[in-house]
Amino acid sequence: MNWVQPKTFTFATPPELFVLESGQRLGPITVTYETYGRLNEARSNAILIAHALTGEQHAAGRHHPSDKVPGWWDELIGPGKPFDTNRFFIICSNVLGGCQGTTGPSSIDPATGRPYGMRFPVYTVRDMVRVQRELIAHLGIDRLLLVAGGSMGGMQVMEWGVTYPELVDGLLPIATCGRMSAMNIAFNEIMRQTIMLDPAWQQGNYEPGKGPAVGLAIARMLGMVTYRSDHVFTERFGRRIMDMRPDVYYRMENRFEIENYLHYQGEKLVKRFDANTYLYLCKAMDLCDIGHGRGGMQAALARIQAHTLFIGVDSDWLYPPSYMIEMAEEMGRLGGRADYWELASPHGHDAFLIEFERMRPVVASFVQRLAAERGCP
Amino acid sequence: MNWVQPKTFTFATPPELFVLESGQRLGPITVTYETYGRLNEARSNAILIAHALTGEQHAAGRHHPSDKVPGWWDELIGPGKPFDTNRFFIICSNVLGGCQGTTGPSSIDPATGRPYGMRFPVYTVRDMVRVQRELIAHLGIDRLLLVAGGSMGGMQVMEWGVTYPELVDGLLPIATCGRMSAMNIAFNEIMRQTIMLDPAWQQGNYEPGKGPAVGLAIARMLGMVTYRSDHVFTERFGRRIMDMRPDVYYRMENRFEIENYLHYQGEKLVKRFDANTYLYLCKAMDLCDIGHGRGGMQAALARIQAHTLFIGVDSDWLYPPSYMIEMAEEMGRLGGRADYWELASPHGHDAFLIEFERMRPVVASFVQRLAAERGCP
Repeated sequence: MNWVQPKTFTFATPPELFVLESGQRLGPITVTYETYGRLNEARSNAILIAHALTGEQHAAGRHHPSDKVPGWWDELIGPGKPFDTNRFFIICSNVLGGCQGTTGPSSIDPATGRPYGMRFPVYTVRDMVRVQRELIAHLGIDRLLLVAGGSMGGMQVMEWGVTYPELVDGLLPIATCGRMSAMNIAFNEIMRQTIMLDPAWQQGNYEPGKGPAVGLAIARMLGMVTYRSDHVFTERFGRRIMDMRPDVYYRMENRFEIENYLHYQGEKLVKRFDANTYLYLCKAMDLCDIGHGRGGMQAALARIQAHTLFIGVDSDWLYPPSYMIEMAEEMGRLGGRADYWELASPHGHDAFLIEFERMRPVVASFVQRLAAERGCP
Repeated sequence: MNWVQPKTFTFATPPELFVLESGQRLGPITVTYETYGRLNEARSNAILIAHALTGEQHAAGRHHPSDKVPGWWDELIGPGKPFDTNRFFIICSNVLGGCQGTTGPSSIDPATGRPYGMRFPVYTVRDMVRVQRELIAHLGIDRLLLVAGGSMGGMQVMEWGVTYPELVDGLLPIATCGRMSAMNIAFNEIMRQTIMLDPAWQQGNYEPGKGPAVGLAIARMLGMVTYRSDHVFTERFGRRIMDMRPDVYYRMENRFEIENYLHYQGEKLVKRFDANTYLYLCKAMDLCDIGHGRGGMQAALARIQAHTLFIGVDSDWLYPPSYMIEMAEEMGRLGGRADYWELASPHGHDAFLIEFERMRPVVASFVQRLAAERGCP
């Protein structure tokens, strides 16, 4: 694959503002996105990839020869890979309200010349999807072959199927839900409260680069625990501790290796992520409910026309398989086309970013079936 | 039952200091405890109850006629109950390093006239048990019929069996572990960091009553999530939200009921608990490893002479049944007397404070068997 470059697309330029699900208006909106492969003449080979909470548009390839790691789903996207760039045109955009180039809380509000901060309107997963719809129209695409993603990406996948049933042939929601559970809302609220407790948060009015680093790092530490599994932490870290010398062992600051690992992960996120954006994205997930304003979950699932393959992870306790199995079964009862495949992995929720060997044949076969059904060359 | 009253016992008065597991010295140590029932002449009917993280010595009965709720295990302790006060002498003390009357970080350091705060030495579950040993000796008891407790209380139960194998006939560890897992250390570290992030913490030097209320409340919110289950939160709160009106629904501050519930629980704990103590107790749990300094888990379990009944909760994901099943099986292989019973409950870890109907017959039969074996009238 050649070096990839992010591109931008701007719409909803005043006075033509974008009306959010809440009724609030926002504009202009710039979307940062990447594409891999080529759109065919029939425009029938487009696949949209949706990213998770702290993810971004850089899903595959490298920007520079010096990049140490490629995009986050590079193992699945590329020539000969399941999302085969020799056959398909792959799109991934930073979500509305993100902080990797798409308009969000860390963007400059043209009305004030300062970052929006907490003055940014609350947006939803449905809004993210409606912005993606604008992007694909801009790219000349009427209909998607597939929308795929895990976690918050999977919520976008579900919203695509319900909001635009006639515009998508296939859905691949992974380790996700159709409506956020009370427990997951609870974890999000704890993360939000931790960020807002940091004095550097300043009601969201921090200067760029001077945000609530400690609060955001702690939030990420909690996130990381929920994304993995007891089993994997035990295997990898067990009870190993920094210093076993008897005079140091009992000190409050003598960290176990699991603690060091989480602190490292927390600090790593702070370097690349905006704290206000984290608050808004968590709120968007909390508000995720494909049945909201549509007569409930069943009515929402009844709208889906796309062939849907749900993938759950057996060790995922944050978005347990049952969430997806219930949706698949309900779709079946309603006459929809839904399959469920369970990924056996010890890695917990994050398995969709780790278990590429096991996912590859299942994803490839689903993509190929969709392409054959659509007559995509 | 008559009204109960807490009592105190003070030992390790300088220069006779108590040497902690770490080698640090502490004294004087005052232990606050309650007893229910009467010690028989043979002194053979004493049962020690050990409390969990935010628990206390008030395990049964009421202090005043106006008390709305009795002690935390009142459903199990009393006349005709499994821990039958007509037959047994029940003891429950606030742990070493607690904040309900036993010497801990919130106590006044006689050397300075101010609270110890973070100058209090790090202590371990083993130290808690060694202090309980001093208490029962003070009460004229050589040997315990049983030690029982859940969660951190269960860790004390395990340490009793290993540290004083010849002094205890029975062990009843519930929803607990013999060594703290990496995941549980992770949750504790996140809770500690949250407390220390609160500017009111002031390196632990806050004035009594002016501690890090927000940080401690958030820590408790996280604790509460880990003590319960996805299932129960969904049943009880689902996605109900404070305000469904379209103009309010999307506001950042429009809380879901699960969020309200957790905030309420957090604020409730702050009124009765000390933040520095929370830090130390979590560290004591992290250091819990019955095999530490004893040649490992197997060697520790081999020391236990007591008949042990492990109780695990099927929906407990914080201290899953496997932790206890493994110890029971290992004790069996080593020739010990260990049984395992699984409590079927949707309530998660906290089931040991909720599922009294189901626990009662199992606990009663275990206590009666121990009493019969010892010839306790």
